[in-house]
Amino acid sequence: MGLLRMSHIEIMVPDLELAAAYYTEVMGLFETGRATDRVFLKCWDEQQHHSVILTFSPSYGLGHIGWKAEHIDDLDYYQARLESAGVTTKRLAQDEWAPGHGESLRFEAPTGHQMEIVYGMQQVGNLLPLTNPPPRPLNMVGVAPPRIDHVFLTAEDVNAGTDFYSNVLDFHLTEQVLGDDGFQIATWMEISHSSHDLALVTGPDGGLHHFAFWVDDWTDIRNAADILAYHGVRIETNPTRHGATRGNCMYFFDPAGHRNEVFTGGYWVDPDEPPVIWTEGEMGRALFYYDGVVNQRFLTVHS
Amino acid sequence: MGLLRMSHIEIMVPDLELAAAYYTEVMGLFETGRATDRVFLKCWDEQQHHSVILTFSPSYGLGHIGWKAEHIDDLDYYQARLESAGVTTKRLAQDEWAPGHGESLRFEAPTGHQMEIVYGMQQVGNLLPLTNPPPRPLNMVGVAPPRIDHVFLTAEDVNAGTDFYSNVLDFHLTEQVLGDDGFQIATWMEISHSSHDLALVTGPDGGLHHFAFWVDDWTDIRNAADILAYHGVRIETNPTRHGATRGNCMYFFDPAGHRNEVFTGGYWVDPDEPPVIWTEGEMGRALFYYDGVVNQRFLTVHS
Amino acid sequence: MGLLRMSHIEIMVPDLELAAAYYTEVMGLFETGRATDRVFLKCWDEQQHHSVILTFSPSYGLGHIGWKAEHIDDLDYYQARLESAGVTTKRLAQDEWAPGHGESLRFEAPTGHQMEIVYGMQQVGNLLPLTNPPPRPLNMVGVAPPRIDHVFLTAEDVNAGTDFYSNVLDFHLTEQVLGDDGFQIATWMEISHSSHDLALVTGPDGGLHHFAFWVDDWTDIRNAADILAYHGVRIETNPTRHGATRGNCMYFFDPAGHRNEVFTGGYWVDPDEPPVIWTEGEMGRALFYYDGVVNQRFLTVHS
Amino acid sequence: MGLLRMSHIEIMVPDLELAAAYYTEVMGLFETGRATDRVFLKCWDEQQHHSVILTFSPSYGLGHIGWKAEHIDDLDYYQARLESAGVTTKRLAQDEWAPGHGESLRFEAPTGHQMEIVYGMQQVGNLLPLTNPPPRPLNMVGVAPPRIDHVFLTAEDVNAGTDFYSNVLDFHLTEQVLGDDGFQIATWMEISHSSHDLALVTGPDGGLHHFAFWVDDWTDIRNAADILAYHGVRIETNPTRHGATRGNCMYFFDPAGHRNEVFTGGYWVDPDEPPVIWTEGEMGRALFYYDGVVNQRFLTVHS
Repeated sequence: MGLLRMSHIEIMVPDLELAAAYYTEVMGLFETGRATDRVFLKCWDEQQHHSVILTFSPSYGLGHIGWKAEHIDDLDYYQARLESAGVTTKRLAQDEWAPGHGESLRFEAPTGHQMEIVYGMQQVGNLLPLTNPPPRPLNMVGVAPPRIDHVFLTAEDVNAGTDFYSNVLDFHLTEQVLGDDGFQIATWMEISHSSHDLALVTGPDGGLHHFAFWVDDWTDIRNAADILAYHGVRIETNPTRHGATRGNCMYFFDPAGHRNEVFTGGYWVDPDEPPVIWTEGEMGRALFYYDGVVNQRFLTVHS
Repeated sequence: MGLLRMSHIEIMVPDLELAAAYYTEVMGLFETGRATDRVFLKCWDEQQHHSVILTFSPSYGLGHIGWKAEHIDDLDYYQARLESAGVTTKRLAQDEWAPGHGESLRFEAPTGHQMEIVYGMQQVGNLLPLTNPPPRPLNMVGVAPPRIDHVFLTAEDVNAGTDFYSNVLDFHLTEQVLGDDGFQIATWMEISHSSHDLALVTGPDGGLHHFAFWVDDWTDIRNAADILAYHGVRIETNPTRHGATRGNCMYFFDPAGHRNEVFTGGYWVDPDEPPVIWTEGEMGRALFYYDGVVNQRFLTVHS
Repeated sequence: MGLLRMSHIEIMVPDLELAAAYYTEVMGLFETGRATDRVFLKCWDEQQHHSVILTFSPSYGLGHIGWKAEHIDDLDYYQARLESAGVTTKRLAQDEWAPGHGESLRFEAPTGHQMEIVYGMQQVGNLLPLTNPPPRPLNMVGVAPPRIDHVFLTAEDVNAGTDFYSNVLDFHLTEQVLGDDGFQIATWMEISHSSHDLALVTGPDGGLHHFAFWVDDWTDIRNAADILAYHGVRIETNPTRHGATRGNCMYFFDPAGHRNEVFTGGYWVDPDEPPVIWTEGEMGRALFYYDGVVNQRFLTVHS
Repeated sequence: MGLLRMSHIEIMVPDLELAAAYYTEVMGLFETGRATDRVFLKCWDEQQHHSVILTFSPSYGLGHIGWKAEHIDDLDYYQARLESAGVTTKRLAQDEWAPGHGESLRFEAPTGHQMEIVYGMQQVGNLLPLTNPPPRPLNMVGVAPPRIDHVFLTAEDVNAGTDFYSNVLDFHLTEQVLGDDGFQIATWMEISHSSHDLALVTGPDGGLHHFAFWVDDWTDIRNAADILAYHGVRIETNPTRHGATRGNCMYFFDPAGHRNEVFTGGYWVDPDEPPVIWTEGEMGRALFYYDGVVNQRFLTVHS
């Protein structure tokens, strides 16, 4: 029982067709459904109906983030814990929010982000047959990451936010940047035994710093860079490595202005392992290990 | 609660110094302790005291395999389930079997393998500092995999064995080779959301086909090949890819005769995903996707 | 002045459409022309009209091999040297043998192989624009190597053959397997400052052991393996490394039975560097560095 | 006959021990000799006595650049051509400038750079045995590139400089950035059939923008980044790709202030291939294909 991993993200886009074109033709996700003002997308190796939802809205920004529960009972369990923690929750029945979406528990986290815990999303299969499959499909278009990976959010009080996600939702702190005053400037937390599923950095409540797609190795980061540059996508950061999480990565922007990341690497972590600490003076290295430079844009631009 | 991952493997070696030299100087593990007839080893990124134990014995073969429990209560929980399933168990207190080893629950699985569930092994830290760590140590010797990954065992009745691991120990079947008669010839199971932590192939009960170390990517497989060949290690299989698990891999033998593997790739799997099926006619591809050739040695040599 | 590199290879195929389908759809070459019984192909980054020519013939085998000359005067120069060495030559005018083919000097080498030196083949451009090009085309089909690389031939007298290519055509010996009797069992020679453009191994005169396409790195070898296995191509050797040349490589067969290779790596070599020597006992490692195993098929099957 | 490749670079350093420590322990070159105020270094796979010479001097900057000639007669040949072009030359006998250095022809190019053509430098062998060598040495320290690759210089009149190197020294133009006024802003030229051995960018005469070491693939670029960052080396550019040359690369500075590069990729080029043209508006992409951003430092800092 418990949360398994990040399930999906809903982002708001002012131009639904442009966003859909970018996420399918450049990022290489697959469209699995449409509603009046929504496009549902999944990565090629994901079995579930969607991991990215584009919702029409006059301005861009985060809709909500979903976490996949292992059992249906997890919804009751976390509803009780959230309510005990003073968080208002709402249950959505199977397909109530959207077709194929599963049953879910919605709430606004104390960090100001709309979230839900979801169970039972429709299985649509990945792009491979279940019998005698090849290791990967050929001739996919665009970056074509196998799956969504993590989300990085901004919050005014990272300490309080981290306590909430740890104590109420059972996330496990893996790394943190501690200010010279002892407060957490940024934190990385996991529920999937990876380096992080959710991270927080100091900023406005409710902000989305970026969300990330998994790619399989460093060469896939380069492949993504080649494809993104070919299509004129705005690349913010050349292929590099994080100090925190050790992951190799690259940042860029979707047409609506959301920062995307392709990420690989990191490590397996057990729940009983102590968190890594980054000092304030080494925050540049924590974020960008090679050049140690964090520009103002990276710290201030979010959606 | 539940099992987290493979914790360790104990193998029997007739020449303790030769085996220790191979596992430290060629494979690049680190010695963390010695007892009269045992050497304890860990991979560089592992936090716990040991993941490979070499035990002196006139003949080579499997000692036992350990699975890491998330909570101490898991020992009681699985003791009850094992006993209900007719499996005799034995509790070993903290440090009773070996210093730093944690508290454990020993049993012989119906497949004839000595196993244990362990909790509380001593944390000794990986090779990196906890504050402002670089992403990896420099100048390690040998292959230096970050961690142990999985074990592949032989059993006379793969169907019954798979049922046991699934029903009693909560492993999740990810892939299987089904004979034309409908019986399982080989199965892959996971507890860590990876492609497999434990696999079974038809053969004698109690047999060890191989155990595998994780490496981070395809280039690390080549690096391992360069190093192993440099040292004259007997390489059985050139770098290749499994159909089942999709992983890239290479097989070779330690000086005592145990088959080792370096493995990378695979995929994330949710517990609600259906298993992949390989037909008997495609078993060659399931094991070796590129040339589809499984030689007799691979199917018959085990320890 | 002098020879620059391997220009092209002509192979004989009993089923022209099947061979063309394999070389375009699986290997990912591009068709640049057709004649009654011929198909002309080039790799994506090659500027010249063709590097592989498929010629209809009841049985498969080598047609001829072409070497690109730097200057038109090289044809006269090598004609004189060849005639002095007792080799009969024939001049073919621009487009005489085939449209776009350039002017050439044909001869049968003492090793029994039809060869030519060619100058002035039609430039058709690679797949990129000449102004502000991206680093590579996107969405190519199949393996899509950037260029042809080298050829490996069989000859009864490797010593005499090597002397001919060195003394008459200015190839430079880079590596050799010396038999215990002091004779050359196999030799590698270059004209392009790479590890080899032409190699000889003991076997029947006039035999083609394999020809190789360049790919850019080890990950491209895996990519080729994924694609070839997907299409059911007969793969002879998993991704591996040669001792001689140090190159990473993989062998497989085209539908007519010619052995193909994808190759990467090797090294830069100056003409004044001494050749590497492999002893007969280490010939296995010279060919396949990792497992050191050369099966009978590899030594006996050629076209 | 002709120039084969870049042979060596001499750079001036105010702290000889610090520079030697950086180039041996961090960059992983090997010291092959010392003179009163000089340290001679080579990369592991180079056969010749040195490719980098550190010379004590109160201020940093370029000493001279050497090009390797194929034959001793090339010295006479280029001396005549240089003198005809109005360039004063000086012959240095074997070992006259430094032990092991070969015979050379010194001159100041019209771009204000001290250069020489050298023949007969002492062969000291690479780090591998000549008989039955492994493909690479194990346990080297630092980045350990196999060889030096190219040099990038500044010149006031890139057009005139490019004409000189093309017409007098037989370099072949492969790529160029053309200003909107038609003049060359930057040019790339080769003598080794690679994407470039020498490049010029508009700036002061005699300036050294950077010199580059070859590494074998994209993963080696990351390996270099890990090692350089570990040692606190000032990294200017994260791993990226050039538009011009297509090469993958990373820039950083030695302790004296010279910009270094690790470079891989590019392409094979024949002398009869037309140059690629980059328009002034796309100069950012020509230099840094991914983000297209050229900061002021990159265009103005040189030595």
